[in-house]
Amino acid sequence: MSNVLGKRLTITLFGESHGEYIGAVLDGLPAGFAIDEQEIAKQLSRRRPSGKGETKRVEKDEFKIISGVYQGHSTGAPITILIPNSDTKSKDYEKLANTPRPSHADYAALLKYNGFNDPRGGGRFSGRLTAPLVAVGGIIIPILESQGIYLFSHIKELGGYHDTPFLGLDLEKLDYSSLQNSPFPTIDEEVGSSMKKAIEEVAASGDSIGGTVETAIIGVPAGLGDPNFDSFESLLSHAIFSIPAIKGLEFGKGFGFKDGLGSTLNDQFAIGERRVYTTTNNNGGINGGISNGMPIFFSSSVKPTPSISKPQKSVDLEKLSPVELSIPGRHDPAIVRRIIPVIEAMAAFVTMDLFIDSFGRD
Amino acid sequence: MSNVLGKRLTITLFGESHGEYIGAVLDGLPAGFAIDEQEIAKQLSRRRPSGKGETKRVEKDEFKIISGVYQGHSTGAPITILIPNSDTKSKDYEKLANTPRPSHADYAALLKYNGFNDPRGGGRFSGRLTAPLVAVGGIIIPILESQGIYLFSHIKELGGYHDTPFLGLDLEKLDYSSLQNSPFPTIDEEVGSSMKKAIEEVAASGDSIGGTVETAIIGVPAGLGDPNFDSFESLLSHAIFSIPAIKGLEFGKGFGFKDGLGSTLNDQFAIGERRVYTTTNNNGGINGGISNGMPIFFSSSVKPTPSISKPQKSVDLEKLSPVELSIPGRHDPAIVRRIIPVIEAMAAFVTMDLFIDSFGRD
Amino acid sequence: MSNVLGKRLTITLFGESHGEYIGAVLDGLPAGFAIDEQEIAKQLSRRRPSGKGETKRVEKDEFKIISGVYQGHSTGAPITILIPNSDTKSKDYEKLANTPRPSHADYAALLKYNGFNDPRGGGRFSGRLTAPLVAVGGIIIPILESQGIYLFSHIKELGGYHDTPFLGLDLEKLDYSSLQNSPFPTIDEEVGSSMKKAIEEVAASGDSIGGTVETAIIGVPAGLGDPNFDSFESLLSHAIFSIPAIKGLEFGKGFGFKDGLGSTLNDQFAIGERRVYTTTNNNGGINGGISNGMPIFFSSSVKPTPSISKPQKSVDLEKLSPVELSIPGRHDPAIVRRIIPVIEAMAAFVTMDLFIDSFGRD
Amino acid sequence: MSNVLGKRLTITLFGESHGEYIGAVLDGLPAGFAIDEQEIAKQLSRRRPSGKGETKRVEKDEFKIISGVYQGHSTGAPITILIPNSDTKSKDYEKLANTPRPSHADYAALLKYNGFNDPRGGGRFSGRLTAPLVAVGGIIIPILESQGIYLFSHIKELGGYHDTPFLGLDLEKLDYSSLQNSPFPTIDEEVGSSMKKAIEEVAASGDSIGGTVETAIIGVPAGLGDPNFDSFESLLSHAIFSIPAIKGLEFGKGFGFKDGLGSTLNDQFAIGERRVYTTTNNNGGINGGISNGMPIFFSSSVKPTPSISKPQKSVDLEKLSPVELSIPGRHDPAIVRRIIPVIEAMAAFVTMDLFIDSFGRD
Repeated sequence: MSNVLGKRLTITLFGESHGEYIGAVLDGLPAGFAIDEQEIAKQLSRRRPSGKGETKRVEKDEFKIISGVYQGHSTGAPITILIPNSDTKSKDYEKLANTPRPSHADYAALLKYNGFNDPRGGGRFSGRLTAPLVAVGGIIIPILESQGIYLFSHIKELGGYHDTPFLGLDLEKLDYSSLQNSPFPTIDEEVGSSMKKAIEEVAASGDSIGGTVETAIIGVPAGLGDPNFDSFESLLSHAIFSIPAIKGLEFGKGFGFKDGLGSTLNDQFAIGERRVYTTTNNNGGINGGISNGMPIFFSSSVKPTPSISKPQKSVDLEKLSPVELSIPGRHDPAIVRRIIPVIEAMAAFVTMDLFIDSFGRD
Repeated sequence: MSNVLGKRLTITLFGESHGEYIGAVLDGLPAGFAIDEQEIAKQLSRRRPSGKGETKRVEKDEFKIISGVYQGHSTGAPITILIPNSDTKSKDYEKLANTPRPSHADYAALLKYNGFNDPRGGGRFSGRLTAPLVAVGGIIIPILESQGIYLFSHIKELGGYHDTPFLGLDLEKLDYSSLQNSPFPTIDEEVGSSMKKAIEEVAASGDSIGGTVETAIIGVPAGLGDPNFDSFESLLSHAIFSIPAIKGLEFGKGFGFKDGLGSTLNDQFAIGERRVYTTTNNNGGINGGISNGMPIFFSSSVKPTPSISKPQKSVDLEKLSPVELSIPGRHDPAIVRRIIPVIEAMAAFVTMDLFIDSFGRD
Repeated sequence: MSNVLGKRLTITLFGESHGEYIGAVLDGLPAGFAIDEQEIAKQLSRRRPSGKGETKRVEKDEFKIISGVYQGHSTGAPITILIPNSDTKSKDYEKLANTPRPSHADYAALLKYNGFNDPRGGGRFSGRLTAPLVAVGGIIIPILESQGIYLFSHIKELGGYHDTPFLGLDLEKLDYSSLQNSPFPTIDEEVGSSMKKAIEEVAASGDSIGGTVETAIIGVPAGLGDPNFDSFESLLSHAIFSIPAIKGLEFGKGFGFKDGLGSTLNDQFAIGERRVYTTTNNNGGINGGISNGMPIFFSSSVKPTPSISKPQKSVDLEKLSPVELSIPGRHDPAIVRRIIPVIEAMAAFVTMDLFIDSFGRD
Repeated sequence: MSNVLGKRLTITLFGESHGEYIGAVLDGLPAGFAIDEQEIAKQLSRRRPSGKGETKRVEKDEFKIISGVYQGHSTGAPITILIPNSDTKSKDYEKLANTPRPSHADYAALLKYNGFNDPRGGGRFSGRLTAPLVAVGGIIIPILESQGIYLFSHIKELGGYHDTPFLGLDLEKLDYSSLQNSPFPTIDEEVGSSMKKAIEEVAASGDSIGGTVETAIIGVPAGLGDPNFDSFESLLSHAIFSIPAIKGLEFGKGFGFKDGLGSTLNDQFAIGERRVYTTTNNNGGINGGISNGMPIFFSSSVKPTPSISKPQKSVDLEKLSPVELSIPGRHDPAIVRRIIPVIEAMAAFVTMDLFIDSFGRD
C-alpha cells in the first residue's frame, strides 16, 4: 500500500525508469556512522550489467547524496540518494501501452491506476528502481560489518546446474570474501562456468532464464526478531518479496522439511569453546522468529526476465484482439547475478532495522 | 518488533499458553458486515486436534467476542476475541526452563528477554496463539465470500507423497468446497490416505513429520497490491511467515522457475468470453506485486513439530553441560493439517486489508 | 483511522460502554520491568467518580492482567488489561438513538458508521474508554519514576478561578507529591476550594463546566523527540487530543506568545552547578521538537461535559423535526478532576515510547 | 521518531538548509488527479519573504517534480519534489556551533546527535524545511477544492491587536477568497494595518514578535476521523505541532471552554433547508474525534522567531562559560504571515489522508 518500508529504519523509494532521477530516502539511521561513497559505488557496480549477454542499457550509476550526511558521517537526519536516469529510450516502449507484456506488471497496473501510470520504460515497475535499494545497501552493509555482521551470496541453481548449498557448510569459516568480490559468485567454479555458458546460450536465442540465489548473514547476535508478526522471517520475506522477479523464499532447509522427521531435522544443541551452538542449522539461524546466534541463510527463487525478444502472445486491449509481441528493447537474459546486491541490500536493511529496534537510536 | 500486523486492518495478538485468555483485537473492519459466531466456531474446529495421532490436549476453543460487534454486525470499532485457556498442564514444561528444546524458541527467547519471558507451555511462542488468528479468519472469510473471494488449500506434499499441484488446474472450476470441508484435504484421495498412514507411523515412533500446504485465493479483483514494498507477495509472505513452523513460501511456480525459460514460463495473454486472462498462471496471479485477476496461489513449507518424545541432545544452560532431552508433553506428529486454517486466516486477512486499502472504509 | 497508538510502544484500545469488558493491549514494553497491580489500582482510583457532585455510576474499576506479566515483571510480550463493565443501565440511553445529544459524537458517528455503531451508553465513544488508558498509566508511570521522571498536574483554571501557573515556578523544587496525591490538585488551596464550590453549584443546576489542566513532566533527559513530524509536541498532542473533551493544548507559554517579543521570551542559557540550563522556560522544555532537559509542561483545555440534564435543542433524525432533549443519565458536572490521570497516562505513554526509541528495547 | 508523516498518505521530508536540495516525497495519492505546477508555485510564493521587514535571504523557490506525475496527472506512484537551495551563507552560522542560540534547537540537537548533526544554517531544523511542505499543499489543496473543500486563514492576534475571530461567523458565507489571496490576511483591514506597523517597529529594533493564526476548513463531509487515537484533532495537532514555532493549538472555542457551561457551550442541533446543522460551532466541527459536517476551525500560537540581532545570553559549551550572543544572519521579525501556507498545507494533508482513509485509493 505504500512506498515506505521498515519500522525504526525506513526506506522511501521513488522514481520512474524515464524520469530525471530515481532515488531513496533512508530515515532513522543513528547519527555518527561513517558513510563512504566508495562503498555505495562498489555496491552499485555489482548491480551494473556486465554487457556480456546482459542488457545493453548503459547505466553509469552516478549518484549523489543530498541530505543526511555531513563531513562523512550520518547526521541522524534522513539520507537522500538521487540517481540520475540517462540513456532512456522511451520509444522502445511506446508501442506497448495497449499491449501488455506477458509476466510484466503492465496489465495489472493498467487496471489499478486506470491508465494514469507512467508506462515509459516500465515506469515505477522498472528494475531500475532496485538501484536506489542497492545504494542503501552500500550505506548499511559497512555499518553492519563494523558490528561483525557479514552478508554474502552465491548462485545456487540455474539451468540444471547446482552449486554446493550453504546447508551443511560452516559458513563462518567459508572464504566468503571471494563470493562477495566475484562478479558471478559460486562456490564451485566449474558449476559457475556451466551456468554462465547456459546464460549465453539463452541470450543468443532471444530468451531468458531463472535461477536460485542463496544468501547468508553471519555474526547476527541472538535475540533479534519477535514471535509471530515481526519474526525475522516475516520481516526478511516482506523485504525480499518486494524485489521484482522473486517468486519463492525459504529459510534453512526450507522446502526440504516436507519429507523429513523431527528427530533428524531438529537442530540439537551442543557446547563449543565459546558458546552454545546447534550441531545442524536446518532452521537457518532463526527459531520462533528470533535469531539464535547461528548463521542466517535463505534461498530466493528468481524468475526468468519477462522481457524477451522471442515472439509471445498478448492482447490489444483497445481492439480486444490477440496480437503477437516481440519486445525489442535491451534486456537481460538472466538477472540472477545482478539481483544479488539487491537481495543483500534488503537483508542488510532488515537486519539493521532489527538492530536499532533492539539497541536504540541515540 | 511488534504484535500488531496490518496497515488499514490490524490484528493485535496477545496471550500466553497458560494464561487465563489468549486473544486478538481486529481493528479497522468497516461497520455493517455480518459477523456469525458459527463461522468462527467452524474455523476453530478445523484447527482442533482430531485426537487420532494428534496432541491429546483438549482444546474446546470456546471464545467470546467482547467488543466491536452489535446486533450481529461489525460496528466499525475494534473487535476483540477472547479464547479461554483450559486444561493447561504447566508441570510438563517446568523442567525445560534451563534446557532449551531443539528447534524451539526457548534458547533465542531466553537471550532476548533476559529470562523474563513466561516459559509455561511455550508462553507467547505456543502454537496456541494461532487460535485467535483462526478466529479472525472466521470473521473475514465470510466477508470475502460475500465479495466473491474464496480460499481453499490442500496438503501438497508429505512423507514422500505428492498430491496433484494447483499449477495447471483450472482453480475456478475445481470442486473446492470439498477441500474446504475435508478434515484432511487432498485432491487425490489415495495420496491423502497414504499421507495419513505416514503420520500415524511417525506418531507411533514418537517422532514428527513436515509437509507442504498449497493455498489458493480465487475471485480477487485485479489491482490489489503495490509495486515493491507492499506487493501482494510481500504482504502475504509477512503474514504467512509469522505462523510458527513455516520455513518456505513460493508463489505460482515458485522455486520451479530456476530451470525454466522466459519463453515457456511467461504467462501469455488471451481473450476469453468475459475477460482478458493468461493461458498459464506460473506467476500465481500476481505481476509486479499487483493481483492480475487470475487465481492467486502459493505453497507453504511446514517443518516437523519440534516437540518429540524421542531423545534429543540439548544443553543445561546453568551447568553448561550436555543433557539428553525427551519431551513428555502432548504433541502433534504433524501440524500440516491443523495449520491450514491458520494459513487461510492470514491470507484472508491480507486480502481484506488490501481490499479496504483500495476501496475505503466508510 | 485506527485504535492503535504509538510507534515503538503501542496501545490498542477496545471495548464499549456496555460490553462485557473494556481494555487495552500495551505492546512493546521491554522485558524485566516490575509491574505492580497496586499502582494500577491507585491510578484507576484517581479517575473514579468521588460521588460528590459527580456521576453516580458506580465504577469499581476491577481489572485483570491476562497476558504479558509473569512473576511480577513484564515479559516482553503484549500486556493485556481487561476491565469488566458492571452497573450498565442501557435503558437510560436507548431513547437517544435517533436524537443526537448536542456536542456528543452521536450525530457524527451515525453518519460515519451508517447506523451500525453500538449506541448503548455512548458505545465506543464513552468516557469509560479512558479507564484502560489510566491502567496503562499505572504500568508506565512507576517505570518512568524508576528512571527519575515524574509527572504531576493541577487544575489551572475553572469557573473564573486561576491557580498559580507552572510557568515561573521551579518545578523540580515544587512539592509535587502533594499534587500527585490530592483528590483535587491545586497549588493554591483557597483557589481549589472556590473551584470545588463552583462545580457543586453547577451540578445543582443540572449543568456542567469546563476548565484547564496543567501537567508537568520533570526529569526527562535532553534529546527525546525529533524535528518536525515526531516532535515531542506532535506526539504529545496526538495523544492528548485523543482524550475526549480536550479542545486545546499549549506548551510552555503557549498562546501567551502572541503578544511577546523574542528578546523577552527566548529562553536564554546559563550555567548552573551541574549543568547548562535556561533561565526561563517559555518553551516548556522542548526546542525544535526535542526535549532540552528542562521541565516539560503543557496546559489542556477541557470542555464542559456535554451530558446535562438541562433541556437542549436537538433533532429527531427520523422525523426530521426539532425536539427538546433532557439527558436523564448519571453525569459529571466537571470532568476536569477525573481527566487528570488520563492526561498523565497519555503523557507517560509518549515519554516511554520516546525513551524506548532512544535507548532500545532489549 | 521519524521523518515520515501520515497513514494512507505519507510525506517523507528531507534536506538541510545548506544542502543541494531539500524536498519531500508524497506517497499514497491516488492516480488520476490533476497536478498543476502553477498551484505549487502559487503556494510557495505565499511563503516567500516579502522583503519588507522580513528575512533578506532570497528564496526563489524553484522546484521540480521528479516522479509520480505524468502528463499532468498523479500516477499513483510517489511524487517527489526537489527544491534547490541557493544563496546559502554558511559563514553566518559557523560561529554558532558551540554557542547554542536561545530558543533554537541547537542545544537539544547537539545532545541528541552527539555533535554529528549538520549545523549549517540550522541544518535539518531550518525553517527552510517548511517549503517542501508548502509544495505538498500546492498539490493537495486544489484536489480538495475539486471535492468542495476549501481552506483559509487569517492573522487573529498580534502585538495586542485582535482580528474578528472565526467563532460566530458563518464561515461558508465569508468572502474567504480574499483571505486566501491576501499577502497579510485579516478580516478587519485596520487591524491588519496596525499589526503590520507593529511588525515593522519590532524589526527596526532588531527584535521579533509572535502571533496567532486561525485556520478554517469548510466543506469537509461528516464522518472523517475516529474516536480517540486518530481523532481529527489528534491527526491535525500532530501535523500542526510538527511546524517549527507552533506552541499552542485550539479547536473551536478551545481554551475559552474553561469558564463556560455545558448549557451555553454545547452545540445544539437544528434543521435547515438542506441538512442538520448546529446553531453554534464551539466544537469547531469535530465531535468525538469525527467531523460533523460543520466548518472545522482552529487557532495556532506562533512564537516569536528566536533569531534576533539583539544581544542574548548563551553559553560557550566548550569553555562552559557565559557568552553574549547577537545573531547577525537574515531573520524574520514575524513568521506569522509566512507560516499560514505551512499550516494550511498540513491541514490539507491531514484532511486528504482521512479522505483516502474513508473512500479508498483505487
